Amino acid sequence: MQLVQAIAALVALWLVCTSPIEAKCGYEACPAGKPNMINVHLVPHSHDDVGWLKTVDQYYYGAKNNIQHAGVQYILDSVVAELLKDPSRRFIQVETAFFFKWYQEQTATVQTLVKKLVNEGRLEFTGGAWSMNDEAAVHYQSVIDQFTLGLKVLNDTFGACARPRIGWQIDPFGHSREMASIFAQMAYDAEFFARMDHVEKTQRLSDIAMEMIWQSSASLKDADIFTGLLYRHYSAPPGFCFDVLCSDAPIIDGKSYDNNVKSRVDDFISYVKSMSNSFRATHIMVPMGDDFQYENAEMNFKNMDKLIKYVNERQVTGSKVHVFYSTPSCYVNELHKMQLTWPNKTQDFFPYASDDHSYWTGYYTSRPTQKRFERIGNHLLQTVKQLSAFVHLYHTEYTGKLDALRQVMGIMQHHDAITGTEKQAVARDYDRLLSDAMTQSQDTARLALTLITNLGVQQFDSCLQLNISVCQAYDSANNLVVTLFNPLAHRSTQYVRLPVLEEHYLVTDENGREVPSELLPVPSQLLDLPHRAHNTKHELVFQATVLKLANYYVRVLPKPRSQKLSTRQRFQQLELLQQKSKADEPEFTLQNSLIKLVFDTSTGHLKSVEMNGVSEPIDQTFGIYNGARANNGAPSRRSSGAYIFRPNGTIALLQQKLNYTVHKGEKVQEVHQQFNEWISQVTRISEGVNRVEFEWLIGPIPIEDDIGKEIVMRFDSSLQSNGIFYTDSNGREMLQRVRNKREYFTPNMTESVSGNYYPVTARIALQDEHKRLALLNDRAQGGSSLADGQLELMLHRRLLNDDAFGVGEALNETQFGTGLIARGKVYLMLNTPTPQSSASERLAQQEIHLPFWPFFSKTNSPILSSVPLPDFNDLPQAVHLLTLEPYSSSELLLRVENIMDHEEGRTVSFNIRHIFEGLSGQEIRETTLDGNMPLADMRRFKFQQDGTTVPQSAEFFTAPYEPLQANKASDSSKFSVTLDPMQIRTFIIKWA
Amino acid sequence: MQLVQAIAALVALWLVCTSPIEAKCGYEACPAGKPNMINVHLVPHSHDDVGWLKTVDQYYYGAKNNIQHAGVQYILDSVVAELLKDPSRRFIQVETAFFFKWYQEQTATVQTLVKKLVNEGRLEFTGGAWSMNDEAAVHYQSVIDQFTLGLKVLNDTFGACARPRIGWQIDPFGHSREMASIFAQMAYDAEFFARMDHVEKTQRLSDIAMEMIWQSSASLKDADIFTGLLYRHYSAPPGFCFDVLCSDAPIIDGKSYDNNVKSRVDDFISYVKSMSNSFRATHIMVPMGDDFQYENAEMNFKNMDKLIKYVNERQVTGSKVHVFYSTPSCYVNELHKMQLTWPNKTQDFFPYASDDHSYWTGYYTSRPTQKRFERIGNHLLQTVKQLSAFVHLYHTEYTGKLDALRQVMGIMQHHDAITGTEKQAVARDYDRLLSDAMTQSQDTARLALTLITNLGVQQFDSCLQLNISVCQAYDSANNLVVTLFNPLAHRSTQYVRLPVLEEHYLVTDENGREVPSELLPVPSQLLDLPHRAHNTKHELVFQATVLKLANYYVRVLPKPRSQKLSTRQRFQQLELLQQKSKADEPEFTLQNSLIKLVFDTSTGHLKSVEMNGVSEPIDQTFGIYNGARANNGAPSRRSSGAYIFRPNGTIALLQQKLNYTVHKGEKVQEVHQQFNEWISQVTRISEGVNRVEFEWLIGPIPIEDDIGKEIVMRFDSSLQSNGIFYTDSNGREMLQRVRNKREYFTPNMTESVSGNYYPVTARIALQDEHKRLALLNDRAQGGSSLADGQLELMLHRRLLNDDAFGVGEALNETQFGTGLIARGKVYLMLNTPTPQSSASERLAQQEIHLPFWPFFSKTNSPILSSVPLPDFNDLPQAVHLLTLEPYSSSELLLRVENIMDHEEGRTVSFNIRHIFEGLSGQEIRETTLDGNMPLADMRRFKFQQDGTTVPQSAEFFTAPYEPLQANKASDSSKFSVTLDPMQIRTFIIKWA
Repeated sequence: MQLVQAIAALVALWLVCTSPIEAKCGYEACPAGKPNMINVHLVPHSHDDVGWLKTVDQYYYGAKNNIQHAGVQYILDSVVAELLKDPSRRFIQVETAFFFKWYQEQTATVQTLVKKLVNEGRLEFTGGAWSMNDEAAVHYQSVIDQFTLGLKVLNDTFGACARPRIGWQIDPFGHSREMASIFAQMAYDAEFFARMDHVEKTQRLSDIAMEMIWQSSASLKDADIFTGLLYRHYSAPPGFCFDVLCSDAPIIDGKSYDNNVKSRVDDFISYVKSMSNSFRATHIMVPMGDDFQYENAEMNFKNMDKLIKYVNERQVTGSKVHVFYSTPSCYVNELHKMQLTWPNKTQDFFPYASDDHSYWTGYYTSRPTQKRFERIGNHLLQTVKQLSAFVHLYHTEYTGKLDALRQVMGIMQHHDAITGTEKQAVARDYDRLLSDAMTQSQDTARLALTLITNLGVQQFDSCLQLNISVCQAYDSANNLVVTLFNPLAHRSTQYVRLPVLEEHYLVTDENGREVPSELLPVPSQLLDLPHRAHNTKHELVFQATVLKLANYYVRVLPKPRSQKLSTRQRFQQLELLQQKSKADEPEFTLQNSLIKLVFDTSTGHLKSVEMNGVSEPIDQTFGIYNGARANNGAPSRRSSGAYIFRPNGTIALLQQKLNYTVHKGEKVQEVHQQFNEWISQVTRISEGVNRVEFEWLIGPIPIEDDIGKEIVMRFDSSLQSNGIFYTDSNGREMLQRVRNKREYFTPNMTESVSGNYYPVTARIALQDEHKRLALLNDRAQGGSSLADGQLELMLHRRLLNDDAFGVGEALNETQFGTGLIARGKVYLMLNTPTPQSSASERLAQQEIHLPFWPFFSKTNSPILSSVPLPDFNDLPQAVHLLTLEPYSSSELLLRVENIMDHEEGRTVSFNIRHIFEGLSGQEIRETTLDGNMPLADMRRFKFQQDGTTVPQSAEFFTAPYEPLQANKASDSSKFSVTLDPMQIRTFIIKWA
Repeated sequence: MQLVQAIAALVALWLVCTSPIEAKCGYEACPAGKPNMINVHLVPHSHDDVGWLKTVDQYYYGAKNNIQHAGVQYILDSVVAELLKDPSRRFIQVETAFFFKWYQEQTATVQTLVKKLVNEGRLEFTGGAWSMNDEAAVHYQSVIDQFTLGLKVLNDTFGACARPRIGWQIDPFGHSREMASIFAQMAYDAEFFARMDHVEKTQRLSDIAMEMIWQSSASLKDADIFTGLLYRHYSAPPGFCFDVLCSDAPIIDGKSYDNNVKSRVDDFISYVKSMSNSFRATHIMVPMGDDFQYENAEMNFKNMDKLIKYVNERQVTGSKVHVFYSTPSCYVNELHKMQLTWPNKTQDFFPYASDDHSYWTGYYTSRPTQKRFERIGNHLLQTVKQLSAFVHLYHTEYTGKLDALRQVMGIMQHHDAITGTEKQAVARDYDRLLSDAMTQSQDTARLALTLITNLGVQQFDSCLQLNISVCQAYDSANNLVVTLFNPLAHRSTQYVRLPVLEEHYLVTDENGREVPSELLPVPSQLLDLPHRAHNTKHELVFQATVLKLANYYVRVLPKPRSQKLSTRQRFQQLELLQQKSKADEPEFTLQNSLIKLVFDTSTGHLKSVEMNGVSEPIDQTFGIYNGARANNGAPSRRSSGAYIFRPNGTIALLQQKLNYTVHKGEKVQEVHQQFNEWISQVTRISEGVNRVEFEWLIGPIPIEDDIGKEIVMRFDSSLQSNGIFYTDSNGREMLQRVRNKREYFTPNMTESVSGNYYPVTARIALQDEHKRLALLNDRAQGGSSLADGQLELMLHRRLLNDDAFGVGEALNETQFGTGLIARGKVYLMLNTPTPQSSASERLAQQEIHLPFWPFFSKTNSPILSSVPLPDFNDLPQAVHLLTLEPYSSSELLLRVENIMDHEEGRTVSFNIRHIFEGLSGQEIRETTLDGNMPLADMRRFKFQQDGTTVPQSAEFFTAPYEPLQANKASDSSKFSVTLDPMQIRTFIIKWA
């Protein structure tokens, strides 16, 4: 009988495969509503976290169901089986990380059936990125990357029918304007989410303003995007969860005492009517799903089938409710057709408060080392991408390793990964995943560098512990070659710091010229770290200038025998300077050609900063909030936790006298300050660098007093900022914040501290008529300006209670048997309140975000470049090389960005023909931001704002200019690129 | 695309349907093992209780998943889908009640696919009865009925391939020999179960005696049946539950840090090796399932597929473990082929103790009113079946109503229904189901009686509250016709009792002759029942004699005017007798021509019984055990509960002086005794009836002292029973019990009371050289003989703690806001210790089990029978008309039984031609006990006992004689029937 079965399967498959694909996917595959009715779009969906209480793989395989019952493999297995049973059924798939893992495990038969479902719009991808990314702590570069990855996998596997049209950010804890802007730039038609400040949601429900037009950029044109807030989280209506995880009553329509068709239909219609009162259209969307639902999709669909049948049967007796399977895109399509007008939105949806005492502003900082590690992952990813692109690496073991890092970085953007809101065991798994992928992708970098240079693949090691002044790549820094890769477009000069054992070194450049270098001591607090299994006590510091790639050579010198050497090698001088300033002088200073810092001799605290022609008394210190501890039984009993920041009482500022040491090199000057037993800092200025660096070291945060603590760095100045400050949105556009105010509603500011916290991914600033003060950071943090002239960033937190939003653990990170120790940098820039100041902050941001990546080789011979790398240096300064990466076996993706906004900069033009040629380009085409759709094909819904005239027919956004399209033979003018402020343009360059 | 899909489905279906059915079901469809290996038969199964914590329908539809996650519709949906994916997969379906409900809901396509699965042995029915019946409290008649029903549905739906071969009693709490005998008589090849006294199981594991040959009858030939105890309950090996209800690790075989193939295979092989040490064959059976598992069968099969794949892959490196999907029948088939020998078993597996303090002997009595109601259900069912058969009712609305009662009675046999071990809400649902089905089937009875007589269908009402002396069928008993139906084969004379309001009646028979009648008072305790909404204070009692059907006419008389009437109507006389005997006489008696009872005047207690020429001092009273209350945290902390009987301390006997009244009619004499505030009794003898009747009324059992109580009726005599007593097995063969002893092992008798309790479905007896004392009961109860000469039956129990075996509720039945009140009868027979005495007890059992069923009509005119009913009266007295029922639209099923065992009686012969003709028979054929398989086709595995010579080829039991097969034209000799002691023969009579 097996033969017969096989034949049957083959025949079925043949019928499926040979049936003409009618291209009725997307909006064309949408079910029709009924006129004069409430049309209810039932949207079956499963919200599958790429890690949270369980690891990614535990969720995929359904392991550790004792922690949480969830198995994504079964969800996809059973959903596909159910969709095949009835062409009217629909399901949306969101997280491509899970989908792709599953799809690769399927037989060819199943893959063909899935393609059919996709091509007929029955399985619709919504969202579609590798994960459903967070919107507070993520950097836009990584968001774009993870959408590029997800959409590319979908496009490569299924073609255009699989392209998502709708953003589906249903779970993240607050929503950034930049995310909306990215959706617009990817040609998405709308975005939906489920979480919003509870006061705002209540008001919007009553204002019938749940759906709106979000003007997602102050600089970009055509960045409006339709945005909807879901009515009741992302769950099915109460009582209508038919999932295996629920206990709601099934629809019982058989001959049974328990037959409940009448009451269930009554309840559903009542819900629908009530819901539709809060929405403008005669179409409403009802999600049918929740976390990890549809593991046994048969239950869900069988009961939804019955619900649809019996609700619609009521129409015979006059019911005006029509319900059917649908998708968010089909819902949006109906709204677009209806040509209604909608309210306007210009700011963002931070912070998210789920009740008056629950501000979800703790996760902006939670797990600070993980947040930093993710940035290092991105740093390496961009480095490896560019290197691979230069040598046209594709379809080798090494691009597989690059893919691994791309994928893990996609996972890291997940709203329970970079947010730090996962369980501890899951955090460890993320670390392992990222660490392993970075290790793998270093092989790819090695191969690329081997192809670029004359060195073998055993070289070009990376150091991943430079943050604690440890490099495992070399024992001795003798005969060390430091190959510096500059991921930025433009030539850059930066300081390089190498942990070293010896005391005398000679550094030379590629031309054999000596490069001035000096030794600085590793802060004593770092030397005491329990897990720092290394005895390097100094860092060798030198300034390097790199276009894309440069080598520096380091040799150990014998003990100094001549004055010359001792002059070059500044160590002795440093020894002399490593003394406390005399106690009888009230102040001491660090000063170079750009900056002067004045410190109070008696306390060791910073007193004032002078730079850019501006001088300002600035008090810088650390502060400690005690985390609220309660039983979460009521809003007022909320604990501070992984999600929630809720201080108990006021801040305790560390203003007492410090122990400190001063270390002045010729280029670099540092004050090492000890604030208390577990908080220390290096305040540093470096010649030629126009910012002050505060390198903090915090932990283990003590909990012996049974109190969790949240540590901030605070700056006080006299600037009259008038309640206003600015924070970046995912590292790109800045948003104005007004203390105790919101755009749409009047917040209840019972929680006056945490309610004023905002995510700071890269920059926080304030200014007055005369001065501007900005802080840049090295990872996402929460920040605020709680008083005029004051800025603070939360650096670290350790808490003893869960905050009862699901994670089920206190955020009490430990490592090596003690509380987590974190280290990082905050940069201060003081300037005049001009757009140019803000622009200079942006350039600094670039260097902080993507500094040189150092590779280390041990060799006596010079490294020669065999392949000249293309030169981006002539692009205007405002242009950022956002992405350069292998795209397919014959294509590269190039993304260029004008990093200045409409105030900071202006439209720039340049020609990329030389880059095209430098990359051996044959053809080039322009795409949407994600790289997967020809920009010429863009046709994005335009919605009308309230107060505007409604057009006669539905309107669309299309490409705002003629997309770049050229080939080798094209005239140079074809390669001209213009970038408006904040504009990003994406190109695919075919090279073979 | 819908058309294409439909075509694909049709083509697939066509291929399925037209492919020749190779009849490779049953043993021919079994997977092959491998020589020189441990062959592991993985048996996917789901144990689906037909009610327990949820009602039948709640389980079926998956409602109330908050109580227990379980939805049988999804189990069957998903199992069928999974079986279709791979022809090597197997599943056994057990409970036909659920299966049939599901199958009827399926589309023709699915039904065809299911047939294919059945025909290929991929979906195998095991057990196959309507429910998995209990084995302690059930009556054999109902067990046979519910197997007949289940197997008939399977046979009608699928044909012979669906016929179960294996008994699958995996959950019942102890195992009866009668059940094994019934399996043998139904041609089953083996039986498996999972529960056995823990001491016995341990011993059998060590003796390698887990599998045995059960000699299931002391009287029947060829009743040996292979019986196996499962190794580890009926669950998957620890760690290998891949079900949605479990949290064991899935098999992770992908590229993952969590890949666990090696450890999982290691663990499985280790389990298999350990298990195989306790079994004789190189084949072992591993169940893969548990309660309500396989709701998402895809999870189970996907992981089992992987387990099989990776375990068998180990064979390449020398592993000797071969694992494959299989079924119990395929396992038994391999054992049969191996021609090993096996240990012997002759008794039963009661009581079941799961630890030294947990004797599952409470459920023998739990929910006494439900247990009684089930018997009334059977009583009506047999009545309606016979009536329907007489008039050849089939395929009408009325047989549908009969089917409803058949099905509900099948459900009532379930091991959490009649056992009383379900939740209270479920018990109420059972009551409702049975009550409704009985009400419906009364319509069928009405129609049949209408066809038999001259009366319209509005007549022939039944009374279901006669147990509390209430009949709702008539307001006044004037012009009342009582139509008595006798379900037994033989003419019978019984007392009829009618609750009446008036005081003077005339009863006449069908010939207009007056029938002596008398009034007896309803016991005062009954009059006070809170829910007895009736004011009848008397019962009209008369003796009736019925062959199959007889009418008695009742008229109210005016107040008596003549001596004649007042003589006939004994009421005044009764008044005189309703006085206490004079206190100065130490004894008073009840006496008639057969029995003399002597009571102590001062205490009111029974002192002695004299009957059948035997006189014996007998003390009869009630006793109270206090139920143990503890936290169930350890065996010694076990509470008495729905399953467990665990008295705390010794019994408290009610030996104090009673209040009592004596009521002597001409025929019936009663003592009404009040033992305490909530226990009373009527002790009764009736002229012509050779047994003493004790009609008890117990409740509400008080719990104000926070102590649960278990009430027994105890008889003490001077019989020297020497530790030996006898209890029936499901109402049929008797088993000898020896106090504190077991057949196979030495029990730990820490629980000396409950450990000596056995199920008493119909009879418990003891004897010595001179005398025999037997008790008959009206429902299943627990009973014992805790001292020589002593017998006790547990009548009622009310407990305040759960016993922690899953039901999660204390057995604390309430009704109308107070504790449950129960009423019932115990019959005593005192005799000489001869086989004839036991035989007379059997005949009494018949009358108690199936007395006349009274129908009530209100009419002035006589009822005439238009259809003569066939006459069974000339069959030998030992022959019982076990079943007569409609079988199909043209067939009846007739089952006759020799109710005497090999000691009580002998082989009888008779001819059934006149019955055949009376039923308009055209053809008759003989079948197995269940009616569904021609006896001529029987070919049942014969296994060899240890010590016997092993035959060269496997042997089989076949029909032990030439099965009866005849038609209208056959010679009368063809209709001759011989019945050995305890033999049952089943015939299908085609009448059209």
